Amino acid sequence: MTTIKEKGKLLKFAQRKLAIASTKDKNMALEKVAQSIEAHRENILQANIQDLEIGKDNFMSEALLDRLALDNQRLDGILHGIHTVIQLPDPIWKSSKVWTLENGLTISQMSVPIGIIGIIYESRPNVTVDAFSLALKSGNAILLRGSSSAINSNIALIKAIKEGLALSPISPDVVQFIEDPDRELVLNMLKANGVLDLIIPRGGAKLIRFVVENSSVPTLQTGEGNCHVFVDASANLDNALKIVINAKTQRLGVCNACETLLVHEDLKDVFLPKVYEALGEEVELRGCELTKPVIDVKAATEQDYKDEFLDAILAIKVVKDVQEAIDHINTYGTMHSEAIITESLTNANRFHREVDASSVYVNASTRFTDGSEFGFGAEMGISTQKIHARGPVGLEQLTTYKYLIMGQGQSRE
Amino acid sequence: MTTIKEKGKLLKFAQRKLAIASTKDKNMALEKVAQSIEAHRENILQANIQDLEIGKDNFMSEALLDRLALDNQRLDGILHGIHTVIQLPDPIWKSSKVWTLENGLTISQMSVPIGIIGIIYESRPNVTVDAFSLALKSGNAILLRGSSSAINSNIALIKAIKEGLALSPISPDVVQFIEDPDRELVLNMLKANGVLDLIIPRGGAKLIRFVVENSSVPTLQTGEGNCHVFVDASANLDNALKIVINAKTQRLGVCNACETLLVHEDLKDVFLPKVYEALGEEVELRGCELTKPVIDVKAATEQDYKDEFLDAILAIKVVKDVQEAIDHINTYGTMHSEAIITESLTNANRFHREVDASSVYVNASTRFTDGSEFGFGAEMGISTQKIHARGPVGLEQLTTYKYLIMGQGQSRE
Repeated sequence: MTTIKEKGKLLKFAQRKLAIASTKDKNMALEKVAQSIEAHRENILQANIQDLEIGKDNFMSEALLDRLALDNQRLDGILHGIHTVIQLPDPIWKSSKVWTLENGLTISQMSVPIGIIGIIYESRPNVTVDAFSLALKSGNAILLRGSSSAINSNIALIKAIKEGLALSPISPDVVQFIEDPDRELVLNMLKANGVLDLIIPRGGAKLIRFVVENSSVPTLQTGEGNCHVFVDASANLDNALKIVINAKTQRLGVCNACETLLVHEDLKDVFLPKVYEALGEEVELRGCELTKPVIDVKAATEQDYKDEFLDAILAIKVVKDVQEAIDHINTYGTMHSEAIITESLTNANRFHREVDASSVYVNASTRFTDGSEFGFGAEMGISTQKIHARGPVGLEQLTTYKYLIMGQGQSRE
Repeated sequence: MTTIKEKGKLLKFAQRKLAIASTKDKNMALEKVAQSIEAHRENILQANIQDLEIGKDNFMSEALLDRLALDNQRLDGILHGIHTVIQLPDPIWKSSKVWTLENGLTISQMSVPIGIIGIIYESRPNVTVDAFSLALKSGNAILLRGSSSAINSNIALIKAIKEGLALSPISPDVVQFIEDPDRELVLNMLKANGVLDLIIPRGGAKLIRFVVENSSVPTLQTGEGNCHVFVDASANLDNALKIVINAKTQRLGVCNACETLLVHEDLKDVFLPKVYEALGEEVELRGCELTKPVIDVKAATEQDYKDEFLDAILAIKVVKDVQEAIDHINTYGTMHSEAIITESLTNANRFHREVDASSVYVNASTRFTDGSEFGFGAEMGISTQKIHARGPVGLEQLTTYKYLIMGQGQSRE
């Protein structure tokens, strides 16, 4: 706990100044960090090669090695990310509401930083820089705990970040990194109420569940997406097919990809063969009892409707109406992204109103649930919980508010 | 866990309908509940007498017995509370933002209920009705767990509520009450992720801390208020004295009462004697080393600056400037309500900007931090955490949002 408390003190002191820093100073700090990463390019790539070699020695899978790997192009992407955040409007000290009471008190609700955010993340080293830049621009200090497999890359990136900050008006203490791989420190973070204001896990479902279940610090649950596309009886079938293909295959391993296709029973004989023809070769289709007589696919199990495949697999279910589609989604979905393809105004409205998810689409692909697509510029993840933030977590979602009350000597009667 | 899961199923089914119920139907349900409580007045008061007798047999303190007691006047207050909630605007399905992307997608951010809220509360039986009416109006179902000392009163109130709902368009299942006093069920509630969307503890600091530390369901931390009034060098002393008296004594046992008075050193010889004269008899004053030579008070300890007294005690500290006042508050405060009394624009702005609390006052009493005073009509408590909601938790703070996306066949490129 000592480590966390000590780092917490540095973070708290630095965050108080960051909270009231001007947009100009924050942008200058981000610019200096980008320059410093550019200057450390070789060191960072060397450190990454070390991590990759250790990974290979430990028989890390190709997929994981790919997530861990940095190269000049990926570093360019990281630098581009910083410049995107520089361009975004500062979310701090904006007022959404001002009102005056009968007694003459004026109340303004002002946006302020959350404070100190803990990030617990898996192998991708770009998260180190992404999370840092979003936190800094929104006035939050961060405590980072990356995975041991990326330790050398992360240390090199943090060194570059801190050297950049040292040349700026913002203290390098606003970012702290836990080098010690001891897992006990993760548990310490999760119990660090009074030190951390929020913890965001970024990684696979297992990591997220571990953090949510064990943390007494408030958490922001992100990422798990069991998303559906429902093709209603009145759907424009060309649109429907394009959207199903896009939602399933445009990128397989992402949380806003479609995992289950729901088809209105009136359409099954005309639409399912189109799906089979378009996707049958590259995607494994698994269908319900009503699907199988129409197209030659594996049987879908109950578990298939629960799983987030993140792979070239699509579960299919024929439903009798929009009600059954909504019920299926509200039972099996993860409150991420859900779509209906329909020309019926009534069904579009019912779907919008009754589906419980962060992002509910009419006649569009679920793949649009994303900070950049939504116009937030960048994101810290996609929230699948109900409180604080839902859907893409951009700069605005990394703020909270306080009420400023201006009086002329008022007391309560 | 069975009890929680079973009640959870009833709540989930009922909440889906409540979520889309019209304002008219929700108000009618509240009206029927008020009528039913009126009709059960005698039963409720009888049940409360039972609780009070058991309480006396168990040597419950006078203060606790008073909190537990109902009478006709208090029941009138409860009914008045329901009618206040009926009058409040419905917070559901309002849009704060609508925007259109380059690709033609239109995104609306719409307010929706959180879902199912668990309330764990101590002896005051009025919480049963208050929490129910706020939850219902905001479209949330609730699972209530009151204290065993109020069990008979609560059972009688729940019976009345459910009978009222049975005569309305809203299902009586939207409210579930845990009768079984087994504390294991509280722990089950705290681990009921997937059943409950949010848990709000209402009671003393110990209960709140227990819930926050043990819950894997998101919680809303409310109530603890170690609030300060800082009298700056330029203060209008008449205003300052009135506000200090109001913030300390208008009601002693409340979370927005002032617990520590900070006085600018330039004022100590003129202002501290006024405080002593006004409060010295009814309030125990405890002062710092610089206070004691001026007025005859007990020495304040470090612990006094940390404590929420909820009593006729006021800690006093002389500070050298607004910076020391802000630092003291950010170190010892609970992010509840903080006030500066000043005529200096610079210091007012610094205090507003730099004090980290839900409600920051210039020239007014901390006692105004309250749902009714703020114009929210009623409240579920006052949040002292950073995420989701800060300050008074009214109907709007019991909502979340979802994004509705309207397309014309768009896929992601």
